[in-house]
Amino acid sequence: MANPSLLILAGDGIGPEVMDEVKRIIGWFGDKRDLTFDVSEDLVGGAAYDAHGVPLHDDTMAKAQDVDAVLLGAVGGPKYDDLDFSVKPERGLLRLRKEMDLFANLRPAQCFDALADFSSLKKDVVAGLDIMIVRELTSGVYFGEPRGIHIEDNMRVGINTQRYTEAEIERAARAAFDLAMKRNKKVCSMEKANVMESGILWRDVVTEVHADYPEVELSHMYADNGAMQLVRAPKQFDVILTDNLFGDILSDCAAMLTGSLGMLPSASLGLPMANGRPKAMYEPVHGSAPDIAGQGKANPIACILSFAMALRYSFDEGSEADRLEAAIEKVLADGARTADLMGPEGGTPLSTTQMGDAILAAL
Amino acid sequence: MANPSLLILAGDGIGPEVMDEVKRIIGWFGDKRDLTFDVSEDLVGGAAYDAHGVPLHDDTMAKAQDVDAVLLGAVGGPKYDDLDFSVKPERGLLRLRKEMDLFANLRPAQCFDALADFSSLKKDVVAGLDIMIVRELTSGVYFGEPRGIHIEDNMRVGINTQRYTEAEIERAARAAFDLAMKRNKKVCSMEKANVMESGILWRDVVTEVHADYPEVELSHMYADNGAMQLVRAPKQFDVILTDNLFGDILSDCAAMLTGSLGMLPSASLGLPMANGRPKAMYEPVHGSAPDIAGQGKANPIACILSFAMALRYSFDEGSEADRLEAAIEKVLADGARTADLMGPEGGTPLSTTQMGDAILAAL
Ligand SMILES: CC(C)[C@H](C(=O)O)[C@@H](O)C(=O)O
Ligand SMILES: CC(C)[C@H](C(=O)O)[C@@H](O)C(=O)O
Repeated sequence: MANPSLLILAGDGIGPEVMDEVKRIIGWFGDKRDLTFDVSEDLVGGAAYDAHGVPLHDDTMAKAQDVDAVLLGAVGGPKYDDLDFSVKPERGLLRLRKEMDLFANLRPAQCFDALADFSSLKKDVVAGLDIMIVRELTSGVYFGEPRGIHIEDNMRVGINTQRYTEAEIERAARAAFDLAMKRNKKVCSMEKANVMESGILWRDVVTEVHADYPEVELSHMYADNGAMQLVRAPKQFDVILTDNLFGDILSDCAAMLTGSLGMLPSASLGLPMANGRPKAMYEPVHGSAPDIAGQGKANPIACILSFAMALRYSFDEGSEADRLEAAIEKVLADGARTADLMGPEGGTPLSTTQMGDAILAAL
Repeated sequence: MANPSLLILAGDGIGPEVMDEVKRIIGWFGDKRDLTFDVSEDLVGGAAYDAHGVPLHDDTMAKAQDVDAVLLGAVGGPKYDDLDFSVKPERGLLRLRKEMDLFANLRPAQCFDALADFSSLKKDVVAGLDIMIVRELTSGVYFGEPRGIHIEDNMRVGINTQRYTEAEIERAARAAFDLAMKRNKKVCSMEKANVMESGILWRDVVTEVHADYPEVELSHMYADNGAMQLVRAPKQFDVILTDNLFGDILSDCAAMLTGSLGMLPSASLGLPMANGRPKAMYEPVHGSAPDIAGQGKANPIACILSFAMALRYSFDEGSEADRLEAAIEKVLADGARTADLMGPEGGTPLSTTQMGDAILAAL
C-alpha cells in the first residue's frame, strides 16, 4: 500500500518554525516506527499572497483535496492588515475549510499537570481539565449570504448572514455525540435560542439527533451562560457542541483557561474519502505570533500535538499518538520550557529547536 | 419641579424579591436625602404573559416611554420554556430595549476587594478589576431581518441577519469614548473584522469617530482574542466597545471574572428626552434564578447597584450614587454575605431582606 500523504502548509509568522519541528517528528516516526508519510509542502496565507497574489493558490487547493491530511501552521501578520478582505491571509484558511468541507472542528482544552500554575485561574479550578469543543466549521455567519458593505440612504451598512440547514447541524451534532461516546458521554450544546431562530433550529436538531445516542447525556445552554460557566467551573463539561461563530469565541476562551495556548492542537474533519479516511486538516490553536516570529522562541508543542491528532483521527494510529503525547508530557514534567512557559522564577528558556530535540530524545 | 419618575418592572423569579429591597432604598433617599421619586410598577416577562398573554403589554410599553427611568428585575423561568418564540419572556425585555432605543448598554465588571477570593481566577489577576463594557443594544443579529426558520428543498433552514448601519455604530462608539474620557481614556473595540464585513464597517466607523477623541487611546481586537485576553489579563482593559451579540457573551465572561454575579448592575441608555435625561433602563446582570426564587436567598446588591447607576446616569446624582455604593462596600467589608457569597468556611448567610437591612443601616 502507498504511504499515507501529508501536505504541509506552514504559512506565516511562527508557522514555518514550529512546522520544522513537526517535520523532524514525522521523520522520527518513519525511521523508528516504520510509519512513513509522503510529505509535500506549499504556501498559504500571507506567504501565498506574496508569491501568487492570493492567500491560497488553486493548485494548492487541489493538492489539499488530494492528500490524506493537511498540516497547517498559522496565517496572518501586520504586513497584510491593509489588504482587501478577499485576499487577506485568513481567506486562504477559510477556503480550505469550506472547499474540503471540514465541518467538525475538534478543539481539546486540556490542562497539562506540569503547567497548571500557568493558568490565570486557580489551580483547583483547572487542574485535570479535559474538555473537547466541537465547533461547526463550514457554515453559519462565516459563509452565509448575503454579506458585504453597501450604501443605503447615503449611509454605509454592513451585513452578514447566520444561516444553518438542518443537515449542517445534524452532521456536527453526530460528530459531537460520537466523540462523547468515547469520552464521558456528556454533550452540552450552546446557542442563543432565546434570541436567534437559527439557535432554535440548532437546539431542535441536536435534540432530534440525540435520540440516536441514548447513552449520552445532553444539555443545552445559552452561549453567554456558556462563557460564564467555562470561567466559573470548566470541569463540569465533557464535550461542548456549538456553531462556527460561538465556537470561535468559546473555544478560545476555553483554550485560555488552560493557561498554555502554545500547547493546544486542533483537528478539522470532513466526510470520509474513498480510502475511508476523513478529509482532514490539523492546526495549532495559536496564531502566527508575528511579534516573536523568526526568533526561535516559539513553542512547537501545539503544532506537534496537532500531528498527534492526525495520527489518531486520520491514520488510526491511536497508540502512536499516545506515544507522542506521553513524550511531550515527560519533557514538560522534566521541566523543559519554551519562553511562553516560563514562570516568574525565570531561568533560561529552550528554543523552538531545543524543545524539538527534547521531545525527540523522550521518544 | 415634579419629582422624577421611575417605573419598576420586577419581572420573574427573584426579580420581585430583589426589587423589594430597591424600593426600600428608594424610600430611604426620599426620607433622608430629600430625593423623592414617583414610583409606579408594572409587569414584564412571564408575569406579563400570565396576566395578558404577552411578555409586555402595550400600556406598559407606553408607560416605559413616559418615565425618567425604568428599573427592571429579571425575566424568564422554566414555566415559559415551551412558549412560542414571539411571546417568550425575553421578548418583553428586547421590546423595551428596541422601542426605547436604548443603544448603549453599560456593563461594569468590577471586582469588590472584599470578594476577590470568590473569583475562579487568581486574586492578583482580578483584584482591583474595573472594566466598563459598552455593548450596542438595539441592532445587530438580535434585530436584523430576514430572520426565521423556513423550509428549503424539504429541509429546515434557520436564518438570522447581522446588520449594522454606520449611524448605529457611531452612536455606540461615542458613548464608549465619552465614558473613557471620564475613566482611564482607553477604548478597546472588539469584532471579527477578519471574517465579517459588518466587523470591517464597525472597525472603520469606530476609527473615524476616534478622530473626535484624540486623548483616548483606541485599540482593536478580534472578539475571540478578546475573550482570551479577558481571561488572561483582564486588567489591561478600561472601556471595551462591542456589538450586541459579542457584547452579550464577552460581558458575561467579564462578569464571571469578578466571581460575584450577584453584584453586577447594568445601565441601558438611549437618546436624551425633552427634559435632557436620557431614555434609560437599569437592570442587574444576573437572571431570574428560578432555582432559588421565592426563598429569600437572592442577593439584592446587583439590583441596588443598578439603582445607583440610575442615580448617576439619569439623575445626575453622582455623589448620592457614591454614597449608596460606599454603603454596600462597607457592609461587604464588615462581612455581610448572602448565600451566593458564602465561602467554603460556611456560616449563616443573610436573607435578601437582611442584606437590605444591613445596607439601610450603613446608609
Ligand atoms: C484566523 C481566523 C479566520 C480563525 C477563525 O475565526 O475561525 C481563527 O480565529 C480560528 O479560530 O481558527
Ligand atoms: C435575556 C437575554 C435576551 C439577554 C440578551 O441576550 O441580551 C441577556 O442575556 C442579557 O445579556 O441581557
